[in-house]
Amino acid sequence: MHQAQAQTIHQSNNPMDKLSDKNQLPTQDQYTDAGKEGRIQFLQNKTQQNLVHLSGQQAKITANVVKGNIENFIGFAQIPIGIAGPLKVNGQFAEGEFYIPLATTEGALVASYNRGCKAASMAGGISTFCIDEGVQRSPIFKFNNLHELQTFEKWLKQQTHIFHAITQERSNHAKFKQMMSFIEGSNLNVVLEFYTGDAAGQNMVTFCSYDICQYVLNNAPVKPTQWYIESNFSGDKKANYKSFQHVRGKKVVCEVELSKEIVQNVLKADAYKIEDYWKTSTVSQVQLGSIGAQGHIANGLTALFIACGQDVACISEASIGVSRLESTHKGGLYASLTLPNLIVGTVGGGTALPTQKECLQIMDCAGAGKAKKFAEIACAIALAGELSIAAAISCDHFVSAHEKLGRK
Amino acid sequence: MHQAQAQTIHQSNNPMDKLSDKNQLPTQDQYTDAGKEGRIQFLQNKTQQNLVHLSGQQAKITANVVKGNIENFIGFAQIPIGIAGPLKVNGQFAEGEFYIPLATTEGALVASYNRGCKAASMAGGISTFCIDEGVQRSPIFKFNNLHELQTFEKWLKQQTHIFHAITQERSNHAKFKQMMSFIEGSNLNVVLEFYTGDAAGQNMVTFCSYDICQYVLNNAPVKPTQWYIESNFSGDKKANYKSFQHVRGKKVVCEVELSKEIVQNVLKADAYKIEDYWKTSTVSQVQLGSIGAQGHIANGLTALFIACGQDVACISEASIGVSRLESTHKGGLYASLTLPNLIVGTVGGGTALPTQKECLQIMDCAGAGKAKKFAEIACAIALAGELSIAAAISCDHFVSAHEKLGRK
Amino acid sequence: MHQAQAQTIHQSNNPMDKLSDKNQLPTQDQYTDAGKEGRIQFLQNKTQQNLVHLSGQQAKITANVVKGNIENFIGFAQIPIGIAGPLKVNGQFAEGEFYIPLATTEGALVASYNRGCKAASMAGGISTFCIDEGVQRSPIFKFNNLHELQTFEKWLKQQTHIFHAITQERSNHAKFKQMMSFIEGSNLNVVLEFYTGDAAGQNMVTFCSYDICQYVLNNAPVKPTQWYIESNFSGDKKANYKSFQHVRGKKVVCEVELSKEIVQNVLKADAYKIEDYWKTSTVSQVQLGSIGAQGHIANGLTALFIACGQDVACISEASIGVSRLESTHKGGLYASLTLPNLIVGTVGGGTALPTQKECLQIMDCAGAGKAKKFAEIACAIALAGELSIAAAISCDHFVSAHEKLGRK
Amino acid sequence: MHQAQAQTIHQSNNPMDKLSDKNQLPTQDQYTDAGKEGRIQFLQNKTQQNLVHLSGQQAKITANVVKGNIENFIGFAQIPIGIAGPLKVNGQFAEGEFYIPLATTEGALVASYNRGCKAASMAGGISTFCIDEGVQRSPIFKFNNLHELQTFEKWLKQQTHIFHAITQERSNHAKFKQMMSFIEGSNLNVVLEFYTGDAAGQNMVTFCSYDICQYVLNNAPVKPTQWYIESNFSGDKKANYKSFQHVRGKKVVCEVELSKEIVQNVLKADAYKIEDYWKTSTVSQVQLGSIGAQGHIANGLTALFIACGQDVACISEASIGVSRLESTHKGGLYASLTLPNLIVGTVGGGTALPTQKECLQIMDCAGAGKAKKFAEIACAIALAGELSIAAAISCDHFVSAHEKLGRK
Repeated sequence: MHQAQAQTIHQSNNPMDKLSDKNQLPTQDQYTDAGKEGRIQFLQNKTQQNLVHLSGQQAKITANVVKGNIENFIGFAQIPIGIAGPLKVNGQFAEGEFYIPLATTEGALVASYNRGCKAASMAGGISTFCIDEGVQRSPIFKFNNLHELQTFEKWLKQQTHIFHAITQERSNHAKFKQMMSFIEGSNLNVVLEFYTGDAAGQNMVTFCSYDICQYVLNNAPVKPTQWYIESNFSGDKKANYKSFQHVRGKKVVCEVELSKEIVQNVLKADAYKIEDYWKTSTVSQVQLGSIGAQGHIANGLTALFIACGQDVACISEASIGVSRLESTHKGGLYASLTLPNLIVGTVGGGTALPTQKECLQIMDCAGAGKAKKFAEIACAIALAGELSIAAAISCDHFVSAHEKLGRK
Repeated sequence: MHQAQAQTIHQSNNPMDKLSDKNQLPTQDQYTDAGKEGRIQFLQNKTQQNLVHLSGQQAKITANVVKGNIENFIGFAQIPIGIAGPLKVNGQFAEGEFYIPLATTEGALVASYNRGCKAASMAGGISTFCIDEGVQRSPIFKFNNLHELQTFEKWLKQQTHIFHAITQERSNHAKFKQMMSFIEGSNLNVVLEFYTGDAAGQNMVTFCSYDICQYVLNNAPVKPTQWYIESNFSGDKKANYKSFQHVRGKKVVCEVELSKEIVQNVLKADAYKIEDYWKTSTVSQVQLGSIGAQGHIANGLTALFIACGQDVACISEASIGVSRLESTHKGGLYASLTLPNLIVGTVGGGTALPTQKECLQIMDCAGAGKAKKFAEIACAIALAGELSIAAAISCDHFVSAHEKLGRK
Repeated sequence: MHQAQAQTIHQSNNPMDKLSDKNQLPTQDQYTDAGKEGRIQFLQNKTQQNLVHLSGQQAKITANVVKGNIENFIGFAQIPIGIAGPLKVNGQFAEGEFYIPLATTEGALVASYNRGCKAASMAGGISTFCIDEGVQRSPIFKFNNLHELQTFEKWLKQQTHIFHAITQERSNHAKFKQMMSFIEGSNLNVVLEFYTGDAAGQNMVTFCSYDICQYVLNNAPVKPTQWYIESNFSGDKKANYKSFQHVRGKKVVCEVELSKEIVQNVLKADAYKIEDYWKTSTVSQVQLGSIGAQGHIANGLTALFIACGQDVACISEASIGVSRLESTHKGGLYASLTLPNLIVGTVGGGTALPTQKECLQIMDCAGAGKAKKFAEIACAIALAGELSIAAAISCDHFVSAHEKLGRK
Repeated sequence: MHQAQAQTIHQSNNPMDKLSDKNQLPTQDQYTDAGKEGRIQFLQNKTQQNLVHLSGQQAKITANVVKGNIENFIGFAQIPIGIAGPLKVNGQFAEGEFYIPLATTEGALVASYNRGCKAASMAGGISTFCIDEGVQRSPIFKFNNLHELQTFEKWLKQQTHIFHAITQERSNHAKFKQMMSFIEGSNLNVVLEFYTGDAAGQNMVTFCSYDICQYVLNNAPVKPTQWYIESNFSGDKKANYKSFQHVRGKKVVCEVELSKEIVQNVLKADAYKIEDYWKTSTVSQVQLGSIGAQGHIANGLTALFIACGQDVACISEASIGVSRLESTHKGGLYASLTLPNLIVGTVGGGTALPTQKECLQIMDCAGAGKAKKFAEIACAIALAGELSIAAAISCDHFVSAHEKLGRK
């Protein structure tokens, strides 16, 4: 689901609009090449980056660039990208106004997120922090009986310093973080958790875990009767409740407080109604049996992931979160979003491919040292979308926006 | 997670390989333009379709085509597409050998799914059925008390014939299927369920629901104190348990039985180990708190959704399923996959965009009358991926495949 | 968890207390035989029932009464019973003021529920309705392949009139309600749902399902390769999400609206704080991964089940619900509770045992024709407990109550 | 659900029965006072305990004993107790043959568990270990914004040595174990975890947490805008997924391996069918949306909890577990059960009440130093029940047992 206010994609003349005009994306000519070119030029000026692949100046991409990303290559899926923003973010790593590239084919999605960006930015921006990080593999070791398992587990817990060393040996980027173990009958689920630097890191985690397991198999005082490198206890590609208790990828939280005026004038809504809607929606999701409770974070995160060369299948796990929308004493709105399972990277995966890299560059998120910054922006844009959809549904302009902007 | 056997992306010389050579995709020159061209030519011959956008012959796409799909358009994300298959499918709607376009940036994914396709096709193909279908909006109506709610609900249940008429009036494609209602205190969650023809249909469902709600608000004997078009009880963009009890999008099931020889020679595995791994993995997922239990269906479905103009954010809900892998008496493998929540369409959304349409055409799935066919293929390719990953992890070649094909 | 306000177990002298004094349970001498006798006498007068076993006048119970309830019998567990109430209930079946027997060994529990009863009764009582009912067995039928399953399922769906007849033949009390079927690969989960009259009914449902399955096995055009009378898809003795989508046992909803004065004077609390606590608690439970969201309904329901001869192990599934606590415009409190899975009966099980029967008689719930009445009372007392604990925790007298009344 | 083999409540004459006759409970005269007396005498001899309250010799219990356990006391619920066993347990704390008192009103339950005890004991007994322990309160602290929260949290993490001291000051039994904190927007869920000695310990945990919170409120550099002693993130009285990631109460695991002969002769079953049933049931529970996957552990645990003065409402959370039943190479059966959330105690609560104490004494589990022993026995008896029900359902004598022993 997604939604929008058609008018928000044109610039506001409202005197209360404190956002500097010079940062506003040109929004005329939505569906012409000239309009597209104008936006590309604007972004190139703002970011001092050459967006030659996005602009289509250099549309031709040779096959050799996809090595390591695909097999049986036949060409490129071309997914339209729109820009939401600028979004002001006050993070630990992301600080400033950002233009967010969103690749989607669902009309009204970008407009909706854009409206949320405007409201949040006018309110001073979204505060955000990357609380925790870690990526796991969960090998499992099976034994004849509990007694053997216990002997093994006791030994295993003494080896973590060696796991650090093995990780260092294998990878330039991964760092061993911790091991946890979970007994189920005579099976031992082991969780090996790593810091993965600026990569999403599933591959490096796999390789390091494999080497650790080889060491374990060679040295343990009791040999398992069977073992597997991944028991599916890690949560890889699976929405799960474990994320809330630990972390997978990055755990990020963000918040913003909107004044009554911004809620009214930008979101065309009422904070009390938004809170009522949020409460109602949360209780409905409790009965639905969803994991977490939120509006439509999958929309924004997926569009961002596609644009930026992320492992899009991780949306299955990353689209779990808790959003909270509450009225303040002054009739304003407090909004927060907590994402425990944001698998993202700014190196590796698809991040170096031509259009993907340019999209990251628009946010100054390409390459090493940028993963937490990108995670903070991802959380912030998702919250912007929560603002917009809750406003639209609670104040009954969800449907008209789709009628205006959606595919007929 | 995803995996592969490097050798399977080259053609087999094995005499047991009963698959006709003429249908084998040329797999040489994985990362050259010539290799790419060869595969495009092959597909054009096989499908009698002009794949001019995929091939890059007509790379330039003008902005006007994205109207209804995006706002603040700046260009296209280019996501590499690889082909898995041919995959033999014996469905009610999908019958024959299919080449499956998968758009991803995760190396080894296509190779892994391709290996699963080969095993399944050699075994005679994957049987699949679209069991049920329906897309929902869940408006909620709030009342002063239970008494008012009950008066309202009693009246509401008598209006379904009118809801049929309203739906017919509003949409050429949607058909009203049924209404369900769920009381929570003085709030009434209403589920309006529709057939959406060959579209994913979330927009048409929204519009029809809105008109129904307007009728309800105007005519109900008791007016709600508040209402919302969507309480988030529908499951839209949220992995949830409700799907298993009802349906969302298409509910599809598929199965295949592999001989011992195919398990050994194509999957390089052992059916008993695969079953043991499946049992172990299922029990681990029970403890993880995931919804459903499967290997990595998000990988294949996401790649297919990106390539084919689907609403990719729906991966959040569609990547829920149950796979089952059990050894047979003869040392072979029975494998099945059940997907209760497959939101797909062959018209609307991004399906008419240039590369997306060509990808659908490769499978003869573009346009009206093809949605169930596409759903059956989607389920089948996901099962192919389950075969491959279970083989790789249970028989310890998961890691080496990633080392060979993954991004260094 | 449970809680209380010590003062509420003594009678109020508050002028606003509109509850008629004559219905107030004597609460002096909490821990003496005289106090106990006084309360028994009071209840005997009120209910015109002889409570000889509860009073201990006839403590000796001969072994023959336990036939059908136990094997290897050695004596009786003696669990103390306290009375909460009177609780005014405005139900479809339960109408009037009720004294609720609660068997527990956890100090402060009865006092806490009693306080909730007082607040609810002063507010005019708890409105409650039994929305739906049905008890299930879920046999599973396994097939060689999907094709056989589909032939079987098609036939099966045509047999429901025969299932009605088989049920009528087998049981004097059960009525066949409906059949649902759920495909998972080549396995068919079948849900047979019955009305069970005034019994919890698991046994009658088992017997009827067995006869239905025998008919199916003898007559189906395709024989399953394996079948089981219960696949554990029914939810028997398992907290589960399915309950919210269907019903198990009785589905009951109740509500009450308290004035600002009652919240202040009886609950010693503030409605805004209670609402804030409820919101906070709900969001925490979303992250916890509990099913439903509520305070401590297991406490009251378990104590009621033990006292009244219910299948106490069903607390595992019955203690799932959604409570909602919201402030009203006038500073009062709206509270509701929805229980989808209340397995209760007033005949069969332990309901005819001596003390159990007397406890049911105190509420005029013993025997035929009383199950829905009892279900409504059960839901109402659980809501009374929700009021009390939310007040105690939100206004910080939770701990002091336990210090006063709990075991040192 | 529960089940039985009628014949197993009579003594076996089978020569393969290696269990010493002298330990067999007399099972004649199931429903007579004489039969009851015989069993009481037998248990008194075996245990050298005076079971005067269970036997009914001293049926009269004076009201003063219930102080701290109940308010508005009116008498005792009398719940019939049957004995299962002897059950051989090879635990770290429980070592030997145990007679297990089960209080229930559901016919066939004790017989079913008894059958499981016999099979397990003949196989050499159930191995069991208490892996972990800890009871939590989860206070929540709310802040104006993330910045304040972070300042608070940073300070909080430095105070744990003081929390140790506060705990020591407040309680003779509780020991502070650890603190965990979980950010959700501007709210901080704090988990305070304690060792509770031999008590279930919820009250002591509440009191210690309260004192810790008072210290925190008085000393923190940033004051929360609101706080609550329990956010319902602890899992108290709520089935939840968190248990599998941490522990609540005791985390216990147990296992047994049965020979083919025992499966056939005692369980009247076939190990391959039992495994097939277990796999089928597990997959069905995945679709049901239950937490964990098991047969009917709520039955045995509830009956044990009622008999032994436990907080029976904790069944809502304790009846979560994972059982595993797999055939061995020799046609035997491996069975295990893992319980992450077993809230039990041998002091406090109802454990000192007359019949409750005698029930604990039968197992030498009354009083200090016995909680882990009791937890191990609880897990073992639950596994015995899993054996019996899986045998009954997989080999189709579930229904006949209920027809024979259940209430007509």
